[in-house]
Amino acid sequence: VTDLQTDIVPALAGIVGDSHVLTDPALRAGYEVDWTGRFRGRALAVVRPADLEQTCEVLHACHAARVPVVPQGGNTGLVGGSVPSPGSVVLSLSRLTDLEAVDLEAGEVTAAAGVTIAAVQERARSAGLEFGVDFGARDSATVGGAIATNAGGIRVLRHGPMRAQLVGIEAVLADGTVVRRLPGMMKDNTGYHLPSLLAGSEGTLAVITRVRLRLLPRLARRVVAVAALAGTGEAVALMARLRATLPALAAAELFFDDGLELVLSHARLERPFGESHPAYLLVECAAVTDPTDELTDALGSAAEVRDAVMAGDAPGRERLWQLRERQSEAVAAAGIPHKLDVSVPIGRMAAFETRVRDVVEAEAPGTRTILWGHVGDGNLHVNLLGPAPDDDRVDEAVLRLVVEMGGSISAEHGIGRAKVRWLSLDRRPEDLAAMRAIKDALDPAGILNPGVLFPAGE
Amino acid sequence: VTDLQTDIVPALAGIVGDSHVLTDPALRAGYEVDWTGRFRGRALAVVRPADLEQTCEVLHACHAARVPVVPQGGNTGLVGGSVPSPGSVVLSLSRLTDLEAVDLEAGEVTAAAGVTIAAVQERARSAGLEFGVDFGARDSATVGGAIATNAGGIRVLRHGPMRAQLVGIEAVLADGTVVRRLPGMMKDNTGYHLPSLLAGSEGTLAVITRVRLRLLPRLARRVVAVAALAGTGEAVALMARLRATLPALAAAELFFDDGLELVLSHARLERPFGESHPAYLLVECAAVTDPTDELTDALGSAAEVRDAVMAGDAPGRERLWQLRERQSEAVAAAGIPHKLDVSVPIGRMAAFETRVRDVVEAEAPGTRTILWGHVGDGNLHVNLLGPAPDDDRVDEAVLRLVVEMGGSISAEHGIGRAKVRWLSLDRRPEDLAAMRAIKDALDPAGILNPGVLFPAGE
Repeated sequence: VTDLQTDIVPALAGIVGDSHVLTDPALRAGYEVDWTGRFRGRALAVVRPADLEQTCEVLHACHAARVPVVPQGGNTGLVGGSVPSPGSVVLSLSRLTDLEAVDLEAGEVTAAAGVTIAAVQERARSAGLEFGVDFGARDSATVGGAIATNAGGIRVLRHGPMRAQLVGIEAVLADGTVVRRLPGMMKDNTGYHLPSLLAGSEGTLAVITRVRLRLLPRLARRVVAVAALAGTGEAVALMARLRATLPALAAAELFFDDGLELVLSHARLERPFGESHPAYLLVECAAVTDPTDELTDALGSAAEVRDAVMAGDAPGRERLWQLRERQSEAVAAAGIPHKLDVSVPIGRMAAFETRVRDVVEAEAPGTRTILWGHVGDGNLHVNLLGPAPDDDRVDEAVLRLVVEMGGSISAEHGIGRAKVRWLSLDRRPEDLAAMRAIKDALDPAGILNPGVLFPAGE
Repeated sequence: VTDLQTDIVPALAGIVGDSHVLTDPALRAGYEVDWTGRFRGRALAVVRPADLEQTCEVLHACHAARVPVVPQGGNTGLVGGSVPSPGSVVLSLSRLTDLEAVDLEAGEVTAAAGVTIAAVQERARSAGLEFGVDFGARDSATVGGAIATNAGGIRVLRHGPMRAQLVGIEAVLADGTVVRRLPGMMKDNTGYHLPSLLAGSEGTLAVITRVRLRLLPRLARRVVAVAALAGTGEAVALMARLRATLPALAAAELFFDDGLELVLSHARLERPFGESHPAYLLVECAAVTDPTDELTDALGSAAEVRDAVMAGDAPGRERLWQLRERQSEAVAAAGIPHKLDVSVPIGRMAAFETRVRDVVEAEAPGTRTILWGHVGDGNLHVNLLGPAPDDDRVDEAVLRLVVEMGGSISAEHGIGRAKVRWLSLDRRPEDLAAMRAIKDALDPAGILNPGVLFPAGE
């Protein structure tokens, strides 16, 4: 610890005011642990700047002192990416909550980093539009964090992840320099697209302070169906046809009978079918005009569909969605799950589903393997009940299988700290070297989120 | 010229064979001038590798000899980005023409860099799908070049530019190192998104050799309308409502009465309206089910619409599209135009349209200013007839106005060599420094496309 590092707390207090530099362990506590409770760290302090200018000054001071900075939004990540590394300062963007009026002519909105996803959704709806991304943590997750992690969720199939919503960005580099292209233009070919690069960079390249997001037409007419199928292969085949013929397709969620049984008993939900089936595909269509007929025709003519239930009214849709969405809490209620979020090329999903069950059984016999996923994205969530929480041998076996099958070890959660040691399984050394070169170019002192994406001290 | 540079031609011949290293000026000629004839250069040689391996070896040899490399696809760019710089080797990707079968399960296709946009479109259609990007140079432009320049075109409003179609990439860095993520996954949060960074980098960061592209449902039912309006403000207001309420909206093209008169007399087209109007908005809707009623309702209830014509059959749609699309050739037939491709925040389009006419008249009195654009993207094409071809004072005046109004000096054509000296007007020094840092990180010797994006010798 150098003198500069010792002096960082008063320096930060000089920038943001004493009350926004938290050093008391009780006040720091909420910032030092992720919401799952799995990842913890200890920060020198938590600093809460009020605006862009203070954010720049904070970074400038930390950079001069070579104090690591861990940017933090809603702290809802699942891979420890916003948990402090040793000796770091947590830079909370939660006070940057400026949310502009919707630009109706452009169909865009500008939000400061600390605005929640739910607030953006609400602002869009109040203007007769919709925001393209939605996920469970919407009330806590912030746009800054969601862009930094390129969050996905249930609408990626239709609208893409956070990166695809981004038309402009303002961010602060490690040394306090501001990069900015606000308002963005949908068409803007004037050099490297920094917004796309910063999206998904997990706080390692810059601190995002403000974003401009595209909004979409409000698709008020929705219909949800759950189709019973013989297995994942049938779900993939059905999905391929739905994708090609149903532009109203908004979600396609695969789950299995063991997960359904678990959620039925946990949440006391109504059984959708008289008999059980190996697999189920929940399909949602959304459009301006009622998409019920299109979906009925598409499922009615599909040889894969053994049985189907459908709902067009909001309570009915909600009942069907719960069969899929509440599986996460049902799994958590049954134990402490190992949760892996992976994707494989869609054509290999069926083979992966079989092999992952075999790999888990071989590595940790007796484990309950509950799977669900977004079939259109090749994204499967692997939930394992049985292995001890800190025993990650089975995790590694699953991730090795994913890599062997040409998949991604992190479909939407990111790498954070949790998956750093496995990133080199997944990405070729040449690709990692290119990433490292970009990191070193934009943050040569390495103060931004050390230990995330790249091993600490590398 | 060093010994290594002198020896580059035999070295390249050793890699690709004599017949694929073009040194004869007659054979080089087509590679040394862009298709507009405006930009010319002279290359040491043109090298045409057959595959990835040869591309790597070519780059490795040029890197060792510090010979600049100018990657070239279909050479259809408009800003001189693929024209050789002095002493460079043109690296033509035209022999990399492998086009895989459509992956129907994923709705994706993998294509080598030299495959044309038209070939991808055709391959998609043969599988019952569509490719999301279309533009006039489709028969010559290649996917590698189109990704490198992040090409746009008439469908950006609905589907985004080339970057938005990209789910995986293979590229060769300056020193011959391969970076690769093929097949890509729609959800893949494992580090910096190199595909998005390489898209729009104009051959300055890597040579793209292969891409994986998303395909889209085929929207077979189309309807086109041209609405007569009082001006750009009315077009922007109408567009905002159409965007919010018509998800079938596929294109929205603004043009003006002088451009209409020019194209009517040049192409001998039928006059769409009995009387003339200040501005026109061509709107196309595309859907699986017939969108005619939705568009009729939307235009019928719009106070801005003075008059409208509509066509649902293919010949009728084509007749309406010609009113807009053939303006480019009509302008070219009337003289040698200065062509600027700019965007401004959509809310400022009306003010920009007025001011740009004033700025042009002040700088070059008597100039004919023909404008058209993609109103949903804030993108206007400024065509100027009158100023001498090599007199760019009026170009600079227009670009300064664009920057003053918070716009982009290149909406879709890129910076290339043509706009390098104006890039510093448009982008802040901090942003340019960040781009430069990335360039230096991935191409420290600076051999890839020197003089493009950044000033030569910088």
